[in-house]
Amino acid sequence: MTPPHWTGSLQAVSEGSPLVHCLTNIVVAGFTANVLLAIGASPAMVENAEESADFAAIAGGVLVNLGTLSAERERAMTSAAAAAHKAGRPWVLDPVAVGALAHRTSFAADLLDHAPTVIRGNASEIASLAGMAGAAGRGVDSSVASDRVIEPAKALAADSGAVVAVSGAVDYVTDGTRVVDVPGGDILMTRVTGVGCALGAMMAAFAAVVHDPLQATVDASAVLAEAGALAARGPRPGPGTYAVRLIDTLADLAGRR
Amino acid sequence: MTPPHWTGSLQAVSEGSPLVHCLTNIVVAGFTANVLLAIGASPAMVENAEESADFAAIAGGVLVNLGTLSAERERAMTSAAAAAHKAGRPWVLDPVAVGALAHRTSFAADLLDHAPTVIRGNASEIASLAGMAGAAGRGVDSSVASDRVIEPAKALAADSGAVVAVSGAVDYVTDGTRVVDVPGGDILMTRVTGVGCALGAMMAAFAAVVHDPLQATVDASAVLAEAGALAARGPRPGPGTYAVRLIDTLADLAGRR
Amino acid sequence: MTPPHWTGSLQAVSEGSPLVHCLTNIVVAGFTANVLLAIGASPAMVENAEESADFAAIAGGVLVNLGTLSAERERAMTSAAAAAHKAGRPWVLDPVAVGALAHRTSFAADLLDHAPTVIRGNASEIASLAGMAGAAGRGVDSSVASDRVIEPAKALAADSGAVVAVSGAVDYVTDGTRVVDVPGGDILMTRVTGVGCALGAMMAAFAAVVHDPLQATVDASAVLAEAGALAARGPRPGPGTYAVRLIDTLADLAGRR
Repeated sequence: MTPPHWTGSLQAVSEGSPLVHCLTNIVVAGFTANVLLAIGASPAMVENAEESADFAAIAGGVLVNLGTLSAERERAMTSAAAAAHKAGRPWVLDPVAVGALAHRTSFAADLLDHAPTVIRGNASEIASLAGMAGAAGRGVDSSVASDRVIEPAKALAADSGAVVAVSGAVDYVTDGTRVVDVPGGDILMTRVTGVGCALGAMMAAFAAVVHDPLQATVDASAVLAEAGALAARGPRPGPGTYAVRLIDTLADLAGRR
Repeated sequence: MTPPHWTGSLQAVSEGSPLVHCLTNIVVAGFTANVLLAIGASPAMVENAEESADFAAIAGGVLVNLGTLSAERERAMTSAAAAAHKAGRPWVLDPVAVGALAHRTSFAADLLDHAPTVIRGNASEIASLAGMAGAAGRGVDSSVASDRVIEPAKALAADSGAVVAVSGAVDYVTDGTRVVDVPGGDILMTRVTGVGCALGAMMAAFAAVVHDPLQATVDASAVLAEAGALAARGPRPGPGTYAVRLIDTLADLAGRR
Repeated sequence: MTPPHWTGSLQAVSEGSPLVHCLTNIVVAGFTANVLLAIGASPAMVENAEESADFAAIAGGVLVNLGTLSAERERAMTSAAAAAHKAGRPWVLDPVAVGALAHRTSFAADLLDHAPTVIRGNASEIASLAGMAGAAGRGVDSSVASDRVIEPAKALAADSGAVVAVSGAVDYVTDGTRVVDVPGGDILMTRVTGVGCALGAMMAAFAAVVHDPLQATVDASAVLAEAGALAARGPRPGPGTYAVRLIDTLADLAGRR
């Protein structure tokens, strides 16, 4: 049997243990750190303006997740994005709830100036960033199916220079030319808070050690989809049990039990 | 066998999937989101001053939990409470540690001007808000038994126009006239951080879809008490296992496994 | 069989239920609270400048963990440390990532003026605080083995008047004269976020009820090492399962199932 395409990338994360600087939200910070530890990456969360630029420049990859913004977090995010871009470090933008709220929609647009390596969001968020009319989402959930925004995602990728990943029942990843679909996963992934946010962090970890951002993004998505499907096997777990199993399964896939 | 009184309310949450805007604390944000997802609600945490009012106006219900205040969170909470009141959206005040700390006691009193739909706290907190002398609590735990503050709770409800819920070994819910007791639960609920805070969020979810705030509050309390008792059955779980089971059990009650 | 040395200390925590005021980071706040609840302590997180001094003065012990700094958290930490020192309350400094980032290295040095009772960190952090050349760490992980910094730790203890604990495969605790090693634990403790941070909180809980800071620090370390080893027994758990078991095991050791 041929090993899956993501085997080498996951092994590179697990062996390289990249430092992933996460500027993320208060809801998912702990879960995100545990996901990164499970695959062998080294998470670190620094969210103050004085330190985020210094830290972004020494990190292997950076995540900027807009979930719970504050004035200081915004300054830290801008500094980190600029520093990562300047230092040639990959950084991932997760535009949580962009489109639903004017302030962060404007902030996300400003962040695009610092050339994110990857943009990961649900269909509503990606459509909004791409400027598609009528795509305003509802809070943090998507009101648009992921396959409906493939063309806007391609346009956003072409315009921004970023790889764009649309999360949904099927994930789509595009660099503006190629479009890769990543099936798999399980509906339970939507019933545990932070699974999508943790995927953004995984993309930063993969991009730290895999040269091609499209491959890094696809492989991170595929690893999480595989873990998400495996963790749902057997007697149907509740969402509490499922969250625990998802972490265990990621560690298993990374050969870290 | 007659189905319990809360069946219809829980089903309304699960089917209506109300957006619950939580301004809550850094300790319990993740657990709160997982509790809301388990019962089928749609959690979203926005805690900056620029966005909280806009978001409160489009949410089904709003939670304002005073656990970890900051200057910016306070501005966001005031804006959200005012916007929810103006838009006719139900909002829940959880006055964590009010009475023990002067600053937040004053802040909570100010929030009462925006007419919370529900106030949920332990006996110390409710007694303090009601102005009962000698009720100063000790941090976040209650130093007063819940049944000792039924009269102050009724007075607070009458004065503020809010439904008041006192959490304890038995929960009491009052609109100033009627008093409903909600027994059940398990002592393990006090050994997992955030169970009371998550109840405040559940009340916001129930109030979003159930017209009568007293019924919404009682039913949310009863669902959590039922889940809390069920999750403790069988060989006595430790608190780590219990937290996982509580989430699973809530999903089971909501028919979401 | 002689009961382990920490039995009396853990019992004192469980029976005394000390209020532990944690100024900590957004990643580990929930896990830390659950660890404290498991051993019977009473956690409370207050992180605003207006309240932290008042709260530190009434708490049994205080934790100041520098993980996710913000301007307001720094003011709150300084106030809390000063208030704890003035009121004679034990307080624990956890200098997360000090040495790797200039801003927090300077901030940690300032906090030393308020005479921490205990300083707990990994080898890189302790070496940096002690001013050992070439000890700059890499984010939150240690790049130095714990036994390499015993002499710097002793010097830091002598200079600061604090008990100094170096976490690693073996923990070392020193008051500048005596050095106690605490073996045990399991490598899985490094694969769950917040275990080290929670140890800092446990030290604050133990120091609240045990008169001798060296004994309090050693006993807290030994209890966590014992729980960490016990939780890894049997079929090798994944890190998600292990985190749950660690909480359960701490509650078992504290006689709280």
